[in-house]
Amino acid sequence: MSSPLFPQHVIAIKRDGAALTREEIQSMVRGATDGSWADYQLSAMLMAIFLRGMTIEETVALTDAMMRSGEVADLSRVKGPKADKHSTGGVGDKVSLHLAPMIAACGVAVPMISGRGLGHTGGTLDKLESIPGFRVNLSTDEYAAQVGRIGLALIGQTSQLAPADRKLYALRDVTGTVENTPLICASILSKKLAEGADVLVADVKFGRGAFMKDKATARELAQTLVSVARLMGTPMRAILTAMDQPLGRTVGNALEMIESIDCLQGRGPADTMEVTFVLGQEMLLLTRIAKTREEARARLEAAIANGAALKKFREMVTAQGGDVRAIDDTSRLPAAKWSVPLVSPRAGFVQSVDAMSVALAALHLGAGRAKAEDRVDHAVGVSQLVKTGERIGPGAVLAMIHANGEAALAGARALLTGGIVVGEGAVALPPLVEEIIG
Amino acid sequence: MSSPLFPQHVIAIKRDGAALTREEIQSMVRGATDGSWADYQLSAMLMAIFLRGMTIEETVALTDAMMRSGEVADLSRVKGPKADKHSTGGVGDKVSLHLAPMIAACGVAVPMISGRGLGHTGGTLDKLESIPGFRVNLSTDEYAAQVGRIGLALIGQTSQLAPADRKLYALRDVTGTVENTPLICASILSKKLAEGADVLVADVKFGRGAFMKDKATARELAQTLVSVARLMGTPMRAILTAMDQPLGRTVGNALEMIESIDCLQGRGPADTMEVTFVLGQEMLLLTRIAKTREEARARLEAAIANGAALKKFREMVTAQGGDVRAIDDTSRLPAAKWSVPLVSPRAGFVQSVDAMSVALAALHLGAGRAKAEDRVDHAVGVSQLVKTGERIGPGAVLAMIHANGEAALAGARALLTGGIVVGEGAVALPPLVEEIIG
Repeated sequence: MSSPLFPQHVIAIKRDGAALTREEIQSMVRGATDGSWADYQLSAMLMAIFLRGMTIEETVALTDAMMRSGEVADLSRVKGPKADKHSTGGVGDKVSLHLAPMIAACGVAVPMISGRGLGHTGGTLDKLESIPGFRVNLSTDEYAAQVGRIGLALIGQTSQLAPADRKLYALRDVTGTVENTPLICASILSKKLAEGADVLVADVKFGRGAFMKDKATARELAQTLVSVARLMGTPMRAILTAMDQPLGRTVGNALEMIESIDCLQGRGPADTMEVTFVLGQEMLLLTRIAKTREEARARLEAAIANGAALKKFREMVTAQGGDVRAIDDTSRLPAAKWSVPLVSPRAGFVQSVDAMSVALAALHLGAGRAKAEDRVDHAVGVSQLVKTGERIGPGAVLAMIHANGEAALAGARALLTGGIVVGEGAVALPPLVEEIIG
Repeated sequence: MSSPLFPQHVIAIKRDGAALTREEIQSMVRGATDGSWADYQLSAMLMAIFLRGMTIEETVALTDAMMRSGEVADLSRVKGPKADKHSTGGVGDKVSLHLAPMIAACGVAVPMISGRGLGHTGGTLDKLESIPGFRVNLSTDEYAAQVGRIGLALIGQTSQLAPADRKLYALRDVTGTVENTPLICASILSKKLAEGADVLVADVKFGRGAFMKDKATARELAQTLVSVARLMGTPMRAILTAMDQPLGRTVGNALEMIESIDCLQGRGPADTMEVTFVLGQEMLLLTRIAKTREEARARLEAAIANGAALKKFREMVTAQGGDVRAIDDTSRLPAAKWSVPLVSPRAGFVQSVDAMSVALAALHLGAGRAKAEDRVDHAVGVSQLVKTGERIGPGAVLAMIHANGEAALAGARALLTGGIVVGEGAVALPPLVEEIIG
C-alpha cells in the first residue's frame, strides 16, 4: 500500500512544473469523483495544469482515470467493427445526424454519445429532439442492446459516464481553465472511450465560429487526441476543418435536421457533404471496411443512393421513440411562426458569412442556450444561408429567418445583416478540410 | 458605474500573465469576504498569482484591499509614536514577549496583534497564555484603550481584522499556494497595517528552521514588505536573520516565557538579545525617539537596567488578567512532570544544533500544533540548549527535555540526539543578523 497523497502536495508537484505520476493523477480524479478533493483543490490543480502543461503520458493517465471514474460501456456482444466520431463544435454542424446512419449502413456499428448545445454551438441531442417523441436518455443497457440490434444509437451522456469529467468541466467553466489542450483532450476522450467504440475520428474545427480560433491550437489538440487515443489502444484520426462560416445552409435544431435528411437523400449542401465524406472515409478505413479512400467514398455514396443510410436513420428514430413520419413529411417537425427573408441590398459576391454572427442570431432566436438551464426552441433558426464566394443578384435572399417573436426577429436580422458581407470582387475560398492527422 | 467583473474573467487576466487593476483586485478581495467569489474561484486565482506573480503595485492594491476587508483599528487617541514588529517565524523566537515592553518603556506605544503556533514554529499567543489567566482575546476597543493607558497590548487576531486574509490563508494552506512573496506580503501587512502602528519592523528569517530556507527568497520578501508598506505610507525596515539553530536556549511555551523574563532582567542569551536590540533600535530610529543606533541601543539597555521594561511587562500582564506573581516566581508557570538531561557522549565543539530537529522534538512533546485544532501543552519543551560553536566537556548537558509522557520523551530524545552534532573542530559561525533592509 502506498501512503496517502495529500491534495496540496500533489498540487505543489504540478505547480512546480514536474510531471505527475499515474498514481498522483488517479488520486486527483478519484478525489473529483468521491469528493475527497475539495472543489478549491481541484480548481487550483486545474490552474496549475493550465499554466504548467501536461506531457502526453500524463494526458493518457488523466484520460484513463477520468474514463474509469464511471461506467465503461460493454459492447462486446456487438459483432463487427464499431466506430464513433466527435466534433469540437461549430455553427451548423449537423454531420453526426446523417453520418452515423451512413456508417451503420456500411456495416460499422456507431455507438455515439453526444452533448447538448451551449453558448454559440448547437448540440446533436437538441437537433434529434426536434423529432417529436425522440428519446436521447437511454440507459447504458438499452443503448448497448440497440447498437447490437440495428447498428447505431445516438444518446446523451448518462450520469454513470465519466462523472469526474462532469465535475472537472463544471469547475473549468467558472475558473478560467477551459482552453487547455490536455484538459480538453482528456474531457473529450474520457467520454468517447467509455462508449465502447473500436476506432474514433474527430472533426477539430478552427476559425471564427469554432472554440479554437487559430489553426495551430486546433492542430495541437488534434495531434494530442490522436496520440492519446492510440496510446490507449484505440486507432484514431482527426481532421482539421475551417469554421469561419457556418457548415451547410441551416442553423437551428429542426432546420438542421431537415438539412441532414436532405443529406441522406442525396440533396445535401456541398460543404456539409464534403466534411461528412472525409470523416466517413476515415471511419471505414480505420475499421478496415474499405482499403482506400476511393473505395470508402464509393461505399458511402452507395449507402445514400440505395437508400440504406436513410433506412438506418428510420430504424434509429423508430427505436428511440421518434415520429418516423417526420422524416418524409418535415412539416411534422416544429415550425416557427414567421419565416422572413433577409434580402441583399446589392448584387455581387458574398465576401463572408460570419459564423459567430449567425450563431448569435440563432441564439437570439432561441435555438440555443446561453446558460445550461435554458430551454431550447426547436423551431427557430436560419435557413437558405448563402455561402461565401457565391455570386448573387440584386434582391437575392441571403437567408430565411425563422422566428417565434418580433423582438427576436429584429435582433437576428440585425446580427445577420452585420454578419453577411456582399461586395464587388470574386472570393478565393481556403480549403474546408485543411488536414488529416494520424 | 463599471460593469460587473466576472470572477472567471478576472482569473483569466492573471492566468495570461497581465497585471490586475486595483478594481479587479478589489473585486476578488470583496468576493473572498462576502462569498461572491466561490472558494474554487479564489483558489484558481491564487494559483494563477503563484505562477504568474504580481507587481509591487498589484501587491499594494491586494494588501490595501485585504486590510480594508475588515476593521482598521483607530489608535488616533493614543498619543505619541506607535511601532510594531513582525517575525516570519522561527524556532525559539520569543523576541516579541520582551521587546514590546522594552519599546513601551522607551516611550513608543506597541499595538501588537500576534498569532498562534502552527507546524514547527511557536506562537506568541501560546507563550503568553503560559501565564495563568493571561487573556489574548481583547475586543478592538479594549485593545485600543489598553495601548493608550499603558503603551502596549499583545492580543490575538480578532474576527473583525482582515477577514479576507483569513479566508485566503485557509485556502492557500490546502491548495499548495503558501510560498509566494506577494501573497505572503499581503497577508502579513494587511493585518499589521490594520493594527494602527505608525512604523513597522520585520524579522525575516531564513535557514533550516525558517519558512524560507534560502537567503535570496527571504531578502525578496523583506524588500517587498518594505516597499509595499512605504507605498502605503508606513515607514518600515526589515532585518534578515539566520535561523539554522534555534534562537536562545529554550523552545516551548512556558520555557520561552522564562527566557523572556530573563531578557527583561538583563540575563538573556546573547543571540536572543542581539536580535532584540537590532529590531528595537530600528523601531526607535523609525519613530525618531533616537537619532543613532548607538543612542537607541543605550535607551534599550537602560530600560532593562532601570527596571522600566520589566515594569511595563508587569503592567501588561496585570491589564490582560495574568498572574503577575509568575513573573518573579516562575515556578507558578506550568511545569512538566519530567525534566531529563540529554548528555553529550563526547567532548568537543558543538558543530550544529538543527532548528528543525529541535522544533520537531518540541512538537512531539506537545508544545505545538500539527493541526490548527490541536491543543498546546504549555509546560513541555527544551531548555539549556547548547549553541553552535560552544566547546563542551565530556558528559555535558546538551539540553534539558521537559516532558509529560514517556513516549513523547523518548521521541524527543531521539530527535535531539540526531539534531545536535558534537565534533572535533572549532566552528566559525555566520552572522546572526545578515542585513538591514530599508
